Amino acid sequence: MKHIVVTIPAEERHKRYLEEKGKDCVFRYIPAGKVTEEDLKDAQIILGNVPASLLSHTDRLEWLQLNSAGADQYCRPGILKPGTILTNATGAYGLAVSEYMVAVSFNLQNKLYQYYASQQNHRWEDHGKVTSVFGSVTLVVGLGDIGSEYAKRMKALGSYTIGLRRTAGEKPDYLDELYTTERLEDLLPKADFVALSLPSTPETVHIMDERRMRMMKPGAFLINAGRGNAIDTDGLCRVLQDGHLGGCAVDVTDPEPLPLDHPLWDAPRMLITPHISGQYHLPETFERIVRIFGENLEAYLSGNREKMRNQVNFQTGYRRK
Amino acid sequence: MKHIVVTIPAEERHKRYLEEKGKDCVFRYIPAGKVTEEDLKDAQIILGNVPASLLSHTDRLEWLQLNSAGADQYCRPGILKPGTILTNATGAYGLAVSEYMVAVSFNLQNKLYQYYASQQNHRWEDHGKVTSVFGSVTLVVGLGDIGSEYAKRMKALGSYTIGLRRTAGEKPDYLDELYTTERLEDLLPKADFVALSLPSTPETVHIMDERRMRMMKPGAFLINAGRGNAIDTDGLCRVLQDGHLGGCAVDVTDPEPLPLDHPLWDAPRMLITPHISGQYHLPETFERIVRIFGENLEAYLSGNREKMRNQVNFQTGYRRK
Repeated sequence: MKHIVVTIPAEERHKRYLEEKGKDCVFRYIPAGKVTEEDLKDAQIILGNVPASLLSHTDRLEWLQLNSAGADQYCRPGILKPGTILTNATGAYGLAVSEYMVAVSFNLQNKLYQYYASQQNHRWEDHGKVTSVFGSVTLVVGLGDIGSEYAKRMKALGSYTIGLRRTAGEKPDYLDELYTTERLEDLLPKADFVALSLPSTPETVHIMDERRMRMMKPGAFLINAGRGNAIDTDGLCRVLQDGHLGGCAVDVTDPEPLPLDHPLWDAPRMLITPHISGQYHLPETFERIVRIFGENLEAYLSGNREKMRNQVNFQTGYRRK
Repeated sequence: MKHIVVTIPAEERHKRYLEEKGKDCVFRYIPAGKVTEEDLKDAQIILGNVPASLLSHTDRLEWLQLNSAGADQYCRPGILKPGTILTNATGAYGLAVSEYMVAVSFNLQNKLYQYYASQQNHRWEDHGKVTSVFGSVTLVVGLGDIGSEYAKRMKALGSYTIGLRRTAGEKPDYLDELYTTERLEDLLPKADFVALSLPSTPETVHIMDERRMRMMKPGAFLINAGRGNAIDTDGLCRVLQDGHLGGCAVDVTDPEPLPLDHPLWDAPRMLITPHISGQYHLPETFERIVRIFGENLEAYLSGNREKMRNQVNFQTGYRRK
């Protein structure tokens, strides 16, 4: 019998599903925003991104299942006791975030934001040449669930796809080329779309600094749906002001949230969304998180811990292969 | 030896290509906006959408190759002499316009225009739930080059595609279902995306009237990239005000251009672009038009008129099969 605290907004049908998976367990449902240290004191299993600061007194915690793909704040020393299992929600966000990435790729390319600004002023005005995804080159940096799903979509739409990942491996069909991330600088000048979906690790902070943004093809598009600090924000502002890029879209910023007076808000050819591509904005994302946890719970309770999906390696912040 | 007037903005390499295809012909290059009745008097072949009013005195005209897919204004009685061949540019616009349609499908679905409005006010604010193209149902009304290319893309992105065309025929792989346009009202309630790419004919004027827009699924999206009069604009304004639709995007309006004080500009969840999805905004479109004309010219000059592509049927305004 395990004590389980669920902090994601489960509906009745989700509760029935989870309680079926964990028949002898005691479930408590407490929204993540309301959970206290006291609530977590006896918890052996937690589902949901509770504030990391609350975890230091969870003496009985055996397993934390996150509802996010990013796990960096829970990997830091002192947050979780050694031996605690940490699983993330990789696989839940691929659909929602990759569709967001496709959406902004086309929005930038087709200048829809410029046309929307004209529309607001009732102006029937032409914003000139566009490019096409068909026949373009897309460089996908980070090939987790999100990056892979984006690459599949761009490939299906006729883009030539190049993927970069930390470690080499077999090239999947939806990539035309696959390399390790060391090749980034060789490939930046070739891509029409450069898409980042990376966790925050020492290696990925400012992976796109000003120098590298200037290595991109003039008129190319930069997209970030991973962590805000993958891009040097000040450098991005300068590169956009110069007109080197065709545009940039980010769903994550550094700092985040973006302060009211930050120059990035008004940088030309810039699209900012407030970290909304994931979360539960697409209902299917939530369904997937519940299923990941339910299946992991079944594996955990049957002592089959090897079968648990998405176990995070505390050193790298990535899930183990 | 034929006298050919080319009114599209051909560059030197296009001229070389065309003059190679029409070796013994006399070519004159005059921009469509500057061409006069006098310029066309001796023309036997014209490439480009010259003003229809100038065509009544072209006594020697044998063939008019349009640079547009729409041919309606040239099909009217009295414009072209009987026996004149009329060819359109079907095939040139499929790529550019279908990518525009994908772009607005995602923009509406992901509420990117709402986020852009927030960005303009430096507001980090959440606009709530979204839907996904994956798992959606797309109803494509009109399966010319543009509608077909859009259906292919939506299918590749995981949408269930239903096509409607004037005449039945074999179902292509990129459609899950295919019917004739009579089935429109049965299918409107099932679709998440309803996309129109129809020429202007008596049958297509106001094909989406207010009653039919209200038959659409609540929250569904309507897209028009054909002719503005396929939608009853006043009805659309009412339906958008009521909040029945998730949104609407049009690249064509009725009236067109949209007057400065027209209520459609400010209708909620509305995206208006000023008939820019086609034209030559995508450079590849122009290349394709030149190739269509070049290949048609070769067929024409060799007496092989059956081989000429995109011959328009004056009765229907569609190209002959």
